[in-house]
Amino acid sequence: MISHPQYLTEPWALRESGLDLDVLPQSESLFALSNGHLGWRGNLDEGEPGALPGSYLGGVHELRALPYAEARYGSPETGQTLVDVTNGKLVRLLVDDEPFDIRLGRLHRHERTLDLRAGLLRRTADWTSPAGTRVLVRSTRLVSLGQRAIGAVSFEVEPVDAEARVVVQSELLANEPLPPQDGSDPRSGALIPDPLLALRHDADGGRLRLIHRTRRSALTVAAACGHEVTGPAGTRSHAEAEPDLARFTTVARLRRGERLRVRKTVAHAWSATRSCAGLRAEVDAALAAAEATGWEGLLAEQRACLDAFWERADVRLTGADELQHAVRYALFQAAVRTEEQPISVKGLTGVGYEGHCMWDTETFVLPVLTYTCPEAAAQELRWRHRTLPQAIERARQFGLRGAAFPWRTIAGQESSAYWPAGTAAFHVNAAIAEAAERYTACTGDTEFEREAGVELLVGTARLWESLGHTGPDGAFHLDGVTGPDEYSAVADDNVYTNLMARANLGAAAEAADRHPDLARGLDVRPEEIARWRSAADRMALPYNAELGVHEQSAGFTRHQRWDFAHTGPEEYPLMLHHPYFDLYRKQVVKQADLVLALFLRGEAFTEQEKARDFAYYEPLTVRDSSLSACCQAIVAAETGHLGLAVDHLFESAAIDLEDLEKNTRDGLHLASLAGVWLALVAGFGGLRRRGRELHFAPRLAEPLTELGFRLSAFGRRITVDLTPDAATYTLVAGQALGIRHHGKPLTLEPGTPVTREIPQQPPRPAPGAPRGREPRRALR
Amino acid sequence: MISHPQYLTEPWALRESGLDLDVLPQSESLFALSNGHLGWRGNLDEGEPGALPGSYLGGVHELRALPYAEARYGSPETGQTLVDVTNGKLVRLLVDDEPFDIRLGRLHRHERTLDLRAGLLRRTADWTSPAGTRVLVRSTRLVSLGQRAIGAVSFEVEPVDAEARVVVQSELLANEPLPPQDGSDPRSGALIPDPLLALRHDADGGRLRLIHRTRRSALTVAAACGHEVTGPAGTRSHAEAEPDLARFTTVARLRRGERLRVRKTVAHAWSATRSCAGLRAEVDAALAAAEATGWEGLLAEQRACLDAFWERADVRLTGADELQHAVRYALFQAAVRTEEQPISVKGLTGVGYEGHCMWDTETFVLPVLTYTCPEAAAQELRWRHRTLPQAIERARQFGLRGAAFPWRTIAGQESSAYWPAGTAAFHVNAAIAEAAERYTACTGDTEFEREAGVELLVGTARLWESLGHTGPDGAFHLDGVTGPDEYSAVADDNVYTNLMARANLGAAAEAADRHPDLARGLDVRPEEIARWRSAADRMALPYNAELGVHEQSAGFTRHQRWDFAHTGPEEYPLMLHHPYFDLYRKQVVKQADLVLALFLRGEAFTEQEKARDFAYYEPLTVRDSSLSACCQAIVAAETGHLGLAVDHLFESAAIDLEDLEKNTRDGLHLASLAGVWLALVAGFGGLRRRGRELHFAPRLAEPLTELGFRLSAFGRRITVDLTPDAATYTLVAGQALGIRHHGKPLTLEPGTPVTREIPQQPPRPAPGAPRGREPRRALR
Repeated sequence: MISHPQYLTEPWALRESGLDLDVLPQSESLFALSNGHLGWRGNLDEGEPGALPGSYLGGVHELRALPYAEARYGSPETGQTLVDVTNGKLVRLLVDDEPFDIRLGRLHRHERTLDLRAGLLRRTADWTSPAGTRVLVRSTRLVSLGQRAIGAVSFEVEPVDAEARVVVQSELLANEPLPPQDGSDPRSGALIPDPLLALRHDADGGRLRLIHRTRRSALTVAAACGHEVTGPAGTRSHAEAEPDLARFTTVARLRRGERLRVRKTVAHAWSATRSCAGLRAEVDAALAAAEATGWEGLLAEQRACLDAFWERADVRLTGADELQHAVRYALFQAAVRTEEQPISVKGLTGVGYEGHCMWDTETFVLPVLTYTCPEAAAQELRWRHRTLPQAIERARQFGLRGAAFPWRTIAGQESSAYWPAGTAAFHVNAAIAEAAERYTACTGDTEFEREAGVELLVGTARLWESLGHTGPDGAFHLDGVTGPDEYSAVADDNVYTNLMARANLGAAAEAADRHPDLARGLDVRPEEIARWRSAADRMALPYNAELGVHEQSAGFTRHQRWDFAHTGPEEYPLMLHHPYFDLYRKQVVKQADLVLALFLRGEAFTEQEKARDFAYYEPLTVRDSSLSACCQAIVAAETGHLGLAVDHLFESAAIDLEDLEKNTRDGLHLASLAGVWLALVAGFGGLRRRGRELHFAPRLAEPLTELGFRLSAFGRRITVDLTPDAATYTLVAGQALGIRHHGKPLTLEPGTPVTREIPQQPPRPAPGAPRGREPRRALR
Repeated sequence: MISHPQYLTEPWALRESGLDLDVLPQSESLFALSNGHLGWRGNLDEGEPGALPGSYLGGVHELRALPYAEARYGSPETGQTLVDVTNGKLVRLLVDDEPFDIRLGRLHRHERTLDLRAGLLRRTADWTSPAGTRVLVRSTRLVSLGQRAIGAVSFEVEPVDAEARVVVQSELLANEPLPPQDGSDPRSGALIPDPLLALRHDADGGRLRLIHRTRRSALTVAAACGHEVTGPAGTRSHAEAEPDLARFTTVARLRRGERLRVRKTVAHAWSATRSCAGLRAEVDAALAAAEATGWEGLLAEQRACLDAFWERADVRLTGADELQHAVRYALFQAAVRTEEQPISVKGLTGVGYEGHCMWDTETFVLPVLTYTCPEAAAQELRWRHRTLPQAIERARQFGLRGAAFPWRTIAGQESSAYWPAGTAAFHVNAAIAEAAERYTACTGDTEFEREAGVELLVGTARLWESLGHTGPDGAFHLDGVTGPDEYSAVADDNVYTNLMARANLGAAAEAADRHPDLARGLDVRPEEIARWRSAADRMALPYNAELGVHEQSAGFTRHQRWDFAHTGPEEYPLMLHHPYFDLYRKQVVKQADLVLALFLRGEAFTEQEKARDFAYYEPLTVRDSSLSACCQAIVAAETGHLGLAVDHLFESAAIDLEDLEKNTRDGLHLASLAGVWLALVAGFGGLRRRGRELHFAPRLAEPLTELGFRLSAFGRRITVDLTPDAATYTLVAGQALGIRHHGKPLTLEPGTPVTREIPQQPPRPAPGAPRGREPRRALR
């Protein structure tokens, strides 16, 4: 959608130069602000027109019955859905007698800018009301990175030609009406109307307060709002409240050049256990702190937080301005902070997939966090650890040992009603285990490992051991599981799953060895560790010797190929136009699966195997999932198809900015945004971690002429700067560190950049894509 | 449940000698009467107490939305459910001031007898009201086999000790209240409350009439009822009607020894197209005809119909009285007549599986019908043919050619919400094709073949060809389909499915060759026929050479065996206590699948293969389905395990009579009832058809000392009489016929019985059953 002429590519901003109602839904997602605790969609200040109101607190969900036409053992009866909390970002305006509504009157100019360094959404509207009064409206919105409970808006109005009487209404609004749903796209998620039961409302002076409770999940949510008004003499304000609405109204008569400014600061809190009074005190306190900081102080904090973030995380590149923009936008949105709460696949930008946390988070988002803001990765993993009891109960329900983490969840219970995913997609457990292992290895955070990491590894290892069996061939098999590719299901020996399980078993064994006291506490005996290692050593990896390729799962390469030649563009995504049984039984891949294994478990493949496997699966992969392009970019780069890697990188970067999946309206694709970073750093930077060593195998390709990125690991910070010919590694902080450059070891000393030549490679013909599913070079 | 002491085993009757409310729900199914058009559950005349009121007309269904937590392409949005039509069997009684309700007062004696030769349900109750009036109540109920629209009840009451004032109310009642449902057992089916919208009601003289329309499916249903009253002087009757109730009330004062008799005759009709006035005329006419026939005439007709049926179908045996009873009961209930309507898996005896017709009908019920009342088989197949347009549309929706018949349906559209069955269980198509081929071959009914058979065969053959593909091994593969065993799903090359598809392709090719004009009309070209034959010839049949057994489907024998040792009896049926993903990925078989192939496609296996395959699958088969025991009996007999065959035969015979599946309350298991006949005739009689030749390979086993059965085929009727040592074949009607006895050809001449010795076989050790799942010898 950025290809819409109103969107401008800038290195540090997403700018919209006009207002097109057709892309308003997408813009609400793109201009969303979030600090991981509080998320505000980029709705217009005045609320209307709008597609989906969005004010979310991470973890605040409502329950809904999951219907089944036929009962089935193990199917969850209740699902969890992210719901709107009180909307605190609303500021409505009346100009003379008419509401400021950009569908009415005449809009001379409308501009919105998301400033990636300032962390602000700025808006300017130059509007003439139907009755002819012209005003300039400016707002600045932030969701505070320094004070997680806080969002704030500064709203200004100024008449352009002549005097105007204006009324500004700052609101807290609960149970906002939701748009109708058609229900045909399972990705959109259910919307739950009126989720909040009013507990308390008040308005005293400039302070508004609404406290509610979700009806079934019984979470208490509180919002408080303070105001600061600057206007000409005669400006008057008053406040009022009712159960679902609290409003602060300011009336002013402005002469030309005079300005009315209303600044609102909103504090949010929620709890499953604390009382109404406790939450009231909490929001009041948060508001008091934010008001003491003041608007300018909030702006300064915001800037400081982002300066620190970019210092650790920025990626610079030359040769493709649109990509420079896209990667910074992606990092800004994907580098989510949480506080022991799940990271939804949409962040807090929409309710697609019902705001669930899925394996995407651990597999795509947490690597980025681990290398750029590791404390955020730890928070997410601590949330997973907190849900371990539910995972253990789920495994017990399945007759398995250990922990079976849910495919989709907010509060820890399985919320998927689709059994091939909700019961058989066990690989989510390996993703969690690997994220814990990665975080621990990269940070050396022993406290985390002892408090959460070991238990996560042991629980998941136990699951794998009880899930698998030793076949007549002596190998360890994991039958009837669903791997990452959602166009296959309940297949035997999914190579990705098996390799991830192998790593999981190995990591658990090492963690148990490292912490014998904890292992004893978990009743892990040496025999059990030996069984884990044995299962890992004997893990089955289906291979078609005739074709010389690994099978995505047993039998896969013998299946019929999807008839790509007779599949028209209107038939994608395939799952909306073909029955699952037909997708499952044919060679067609929704998203990197075996190819993801080539990346994440690269140590299990020779270079030749990687090349052959990639060449085999690339023409089968339709990328009906946003999780695919980045993986394909990474493995294309590794296997020497740099042009193709660039193409996939561009597609990955465009998924939300160009609305490639046609569902950005439902929220951003967080994993895909993280994938842009992965494609650059793991793809063109060639980053792989082997135990506690970082390996780089960088290679640039047209149009990229320079690429620089920054990493934190093992207590060091390093920067990597690439040109087509050379790589320069700099240790920015910390003690000397050994790394590898294209396989060769080198040591980085503090303050001494090291430059190495990049070995050149003859170009190789790239494997083709399925007809009509070539990478979409949509970014301008 | 017959093991309850109140049930008595008689050769020609099911008799209940007391009334136990605990088994009332089951008795309502067991005492159901049906003529294939009209079905009346064995509810008490007075309606209460009762478990499930049941008055069904074959094909009369209501629609209901099928809910999904996630939308999915190809999932039907609407399901079809058999619903109660107007209940015409109700006769209520007031004795002095008190209602005749066996829960009140004192029941001295209560007996019900289902007479299998008379086709009547007789009841006697000797009851004293709470106030002390003792009456003898007798009723006789029939659902007419001669006049399909008609049901009738003769109801008599007689005071035993002293004078009584009695009121008899004969009712037509629509929208009867339904029992609450718990929804935990997917087999029970949904009940739709108040399905009928009243169109017209009247009562004139002794005639009642109610006409309704189903709300969503818009089927008009009409019922009319006439009465004949015999009582002492002073007996008075009157009639009244309201939208959902029409009632004929008779009041009499009876002295000791005096009797009041009310005979009601009920006529039913329904239509999707005819008008209310047309249906009114239809029920009035049916009633006029039945009343002209008179009660005694109806009884005589009933007897004549059944005499003719038993003449063609009776199975006699000695050595096991309970089995003699069971097989006659089974034939009585399973030999369903229809009029181009589906045969529900429950017949018209309950709403389990929502009254759907499934593959059970063609696979288990139609063989029995074909050999005993072939015109009924033709009617069912003509109904299938009528739904061909829906099946073609379903195939088109799947991107396939030909016709994809539904897994579950009443009106022809898919009604299964479970996609592994509703989209992938394609074998239903082969079952329909084989039933058509069997019927045509056995009857030589060319008119049927030309009007329906060829199209059924061509449509299904086209489906198979487009569903399969030629693999790198040159074989024709059917990947990702669900076979009969519901504890496996979406697997590759299910041997049963592949063999049935092979037969289907071959039969279609032959039919097209036989009727070139019809083939041209269906655009079947020689190349297409050649492709069918080629696919049939190259059909993949997975075989594990190491174990020397066929695989139920590719990879099956490599899977983990179910842990039978640690599965307690309370965990059966497994699907109610274990998740499907776990059942699917392990070696555990719900119902004969490969073993069913050994029976139905025996020509594809050597004797040794049959023996090894049976020995392999028997210990994996838990028989959580009523469709299994009879197949296992047949193949056990063929592979020389006669004792085991007897055990399975007894279990098969007990499924409803002993309520082995704990759901006889929901209706009878029609396929299992038919399976009793199959187990005897195909198992111990060894009947197989090869083209247009009947092969017998009879062998009796303890406790059976004699077995005699009758068959119609190729325009002949033959009887087969077995002793442990010899078989006697008699051609009862028709010209000379060649058959085979244990492989050796012999010719039957009219009127000349032929006796042949039965080759003796050394006893072989039988394979064991899964722990705790031994055949249940529950019949007394």
